[in-house]
Amino acid sequence: MEYIGKTAIMYALANGEREEQVKEMAEKNGFRLIKGKVGSMNTEKLFAAVETASQREGLIRKDYYRDTHSLYHATLDAVIGICRGQVGLGNMLRTVGLIFTVARGPRTTEQLADGEWLAVVLYGTIGAPIKGYEHETIGLGLNHL
Amino acid sequence: MEYIGKTAIMYALANGEREEQVKEMAEKNGFRLIKGKVGSMNTEKLFAAVETASQREGLIRKDYYRDTHSLYHATLDAVIGICRGQVGLGNMLRTVGLIFTVARGPRTTEQLADGEWLAVVLYGTIGAPIKGYEHETIGLGLNHL
Amino acid sequence: MEYIGKTAIMYALANGEREEQVKEMAEKNGFRLIKGKVGSMNTEKLFAAVETASQREGLIRKDYYRDTHSLYHATLDAVIGICRGQVGLGNMLRTVGLIFTVARGPRTTEQLADGEWLAVVLYGTIGAPIKGYEHETIGLGLNHL
Amino acid sequence: MEYIGKTAIMYALANGEREEQVKEMAEKNGFRLIKGKVGSMNTEKLFAAVETASQREGLIRKDYYRDTHSLYHATLDAVIGICRGQVGLGNMLRTVGLIFTVARGPRTTEQLADGEWLAVVLYGTIGAPIKGYEHETIGLGLNHL
Amino acid sequence: MEYIGKTAIMYALANGEREEQVKEMAEKNGFRLIKGKVGSMNTEKLFAAVETASQREGLIRKDYYRDTHSLYHATLDAVIGICRGQVGLGNMLRTVGLIFTVARGPRTTEQLADGEWLAVVLYGTIGAPIKGYEHETIGLGLNHL
Amino acid sequence: MEYIGKTAIMYALANGEREEQVKEMAEKNGFRLIKGKVGSMNTEKLFAAVETASQREGLIRKDYYRDTHSLYHATLDAVIGICRGQVGLGNMLRTVGLIFTVARGPRTTEQLADGEWLAVVLYGTIGAPIKGYEHETIGLGLNHL
Repeated sequence: MEYIGKTAIMYALANGEREEQVKEMAEKNGFRLIKGKVGSMNTEKLFAAVETASQREGLIRKDYYRDTHSLYHATLDAVIGICRGQVGLGNMLRTVGLIFTVARGPRTTEQLADGEWLAVVLYGTIGAPIKGYEHETIGLGLNHL
Repeated sequence: MEYIGKTAIMYALANGEREEQVKEMAEKNGFRLIKGKVGSMNTEKLFAAVETASQREGLIRKDYYRDTHSLYHATLDAVIGICRGQVGLGNMLRTVGLIFTVARGPRTTEQLADGEWLAVVLYGTIGAPIKGYEHETIGLGLNHL
Repeated sequence: MEYIGKTAIMYALANGEREEQVKEMAEKNGFRLIKGKVGSMNTEKLFAAVETASQREGLIRKDYYRDTHSLYHATLDAVIGICRGQVGLGNMLRTVGLIFTVARGPRTTEQLADGEWLAVVLYGTIGAPIKGYEHETIGLGLNHL
Repeated sequence: MEYIGKTAIMYALANGEREEQVKEMAEKNGFRLIKGKVGSMNTEKLFAAVETASQREGLIRKDYYRDTHSLYHATLDAVIGICRGQVGLGNMLRTVGLIFTVARGPRTTEQLADGEWLAVVLYGTIGAPIKGYEHETIGLGLNHL
Repeated sequence: MEYIGKTAIMYALANGEREEQVKEMAEKNGFRLIKGKVGSMNTEKLFAAVETASQREGLIRKDYYRDTHSLYHATLDAVIGICRGQVGLGNMLRTVGLIFTVARGPRTTEQLADGEWLAVVLYGTIGAPIKGYEHETIGLGLNHL
Repeated sequence: MEYIGKTAIMYALANGEREEQVKEMAEKNGFRLIKGKVGSMNTEKLFAAVETASQREGLIRKDYYRDTHSLYHATLDAVIGICRGQVGLGNMLRTVGLIFTVARGPRTTEQLADGEWLAVVLYGTIGAPIKGYEHETIGLGLNHL
């Protein structure tokens, strides 16, 4: 059994050849995946980066509020995860450099009757606005589409 | 360059043979890893499971408050991550079934001068106290030891 | 144009003859409504009361996790609203006496293409566990079904 | 028995003729009411709009810190209600279009010995900065004056 | 100029002879002070200890909800201060051993026209339920009476 | 037995001759102390003021991320304390005028084997951006170095 969240995490952590393998396997399992990068001291940029990429690559429909609403809350949960409680970056004198991935598909490969879900992963570093003064952070948000 | 947090996440997600490979590779890279399971509606059980395993397997010293303090805050960050903001399980009518991993070592394999750090990962499912009414969640906390 | 949230709030605030009028009008507008009472110092009771009533009266399907997931998050938002930030009652030495309503239908009567939504309202009093030592509170949560 | 919070909510939800009726009835019951509108991505604008209108219409005294302090915390509770936990709008890529009402008077029409209270209601829509990509939200804050 | 909050903090930190001096000076300045101890893993015990002592020693009136409401929110702010964000003790596997003080009087000795205020201080240690595995914490809440 | 947090609080509250006495006594007890002022509507300024002063006066090393990380989290806890839950100033239409102190040394004078710790205190006023429309607030954060 494969999970949508684990799939999105593995894709976020993978590089090069491994990244392609994860994507191929995921597609065979019925998941669609996108990946991007965002670095910012402004939390709204994280929401915008995930939404823009998801719409551009057709993962969600741009003209359908339900899709946007579902993705927004999945992204919010991921943002809360990387901020660990208080949503804030620049106002707390910290910045992030993140990979984001979004997966669309069943909750797991054995729960197809349960409709489509979204999983948003943010993974990278959080820290002071000084190179190297940072450590890793991850956030995952799931929502039914 | 290998990262302590990514190492702990990969170990949490791996099973069987792959799990052994991740651990061996991590040890070569200077990370020590432990892994366990915890399922509960009581958040304090998550803290206790991580602390007990870490002390029993010698990842932190039991008689040294600094170690306990460092691990506590790494675990708290991971718990906040899986709860996404509000720390609470049973009081919010939800339960978790989690794998936890703890890694001890350098922040990355290229930042050895920076001393030792701890990374705590909680990964699994969160949901209603009904089998299958749940979705994935992850939390990661890092702290200097 | 009629709104799902406003409809659920009006139904929560109405009594007697007025209550019946609100319900009839709502049904003509395509909203289904349920209403109940819950008083407790345990936040999980609020979730359970809303879920049980919604399933019993057929507002959501019991054997379908998507419905439960959608209602859970709408209820959580309403609970956060009545607690104003920190989810907690007895642990903060306070108790609630609440009316709850759940509405199912379009987001508004002019946005039918947008599918079905849920609105959960909690309205009543919050205060010390002493009769009369309390004031009003309200919470509203919306989610796409 | 009439309640200060319910009165402020009913006034926020009412339009046209009904709005006048709610206000007249409220005044007979010993409540004073004001109403205004505010739309913004900046949470501080919500505080400012409520405070400015309350001072201008004489609901609270401008030169008396106690009044300002009481209104501030009632407004903060209402803001927390509409944001559902994390205070933030633009930084979370969302905006609001709100009606606000403030009521001043007894906690209920049967608790006159309990002095004067303030109730602040914020009601309207919250959502993406795109017309129609939004849903309803409400917040209520009460405080003793 | 003397401040109500500083007075309550100084009284919480003082012992023996110094404690008496702080109290005498405070009374000359128009502040009334009480002091007590509470140790618990249950946050509701902190609210109860402060309220019970304040009522017993006549700092607030027991039969007047306004007084209770004002003290409750001052105490809540102090509890949030010692918990630093998430209200919780035992559920986060931590316990506290605290001194509490409550001051009643003017906001400062130069702002007499501003009526009476309450200041609640919680000061002591927070940590694991193991002797010595703890560090200091403080919380201060002010409210108009 | 002297405590690092209490020492930092006493130093923050002291003025003139008393301030010098507190510092001398603290140094005899093995604590190093610094003090500064910061007033702002931007929370990031609080972090920056504490960090800059601590590095300039040699309390922590500038080129060592562990020190910065430890101080950051101690400062964050103090900021959460003065904001009482929600980190925010200008966005909540409030401002602060604060004294800050940082202490470095043992957790207490009897726990020397436990290594070095940092204590950050923020003490002053929080309120509306109008002179005198404010009340006191305090925050304390401790962390192992």
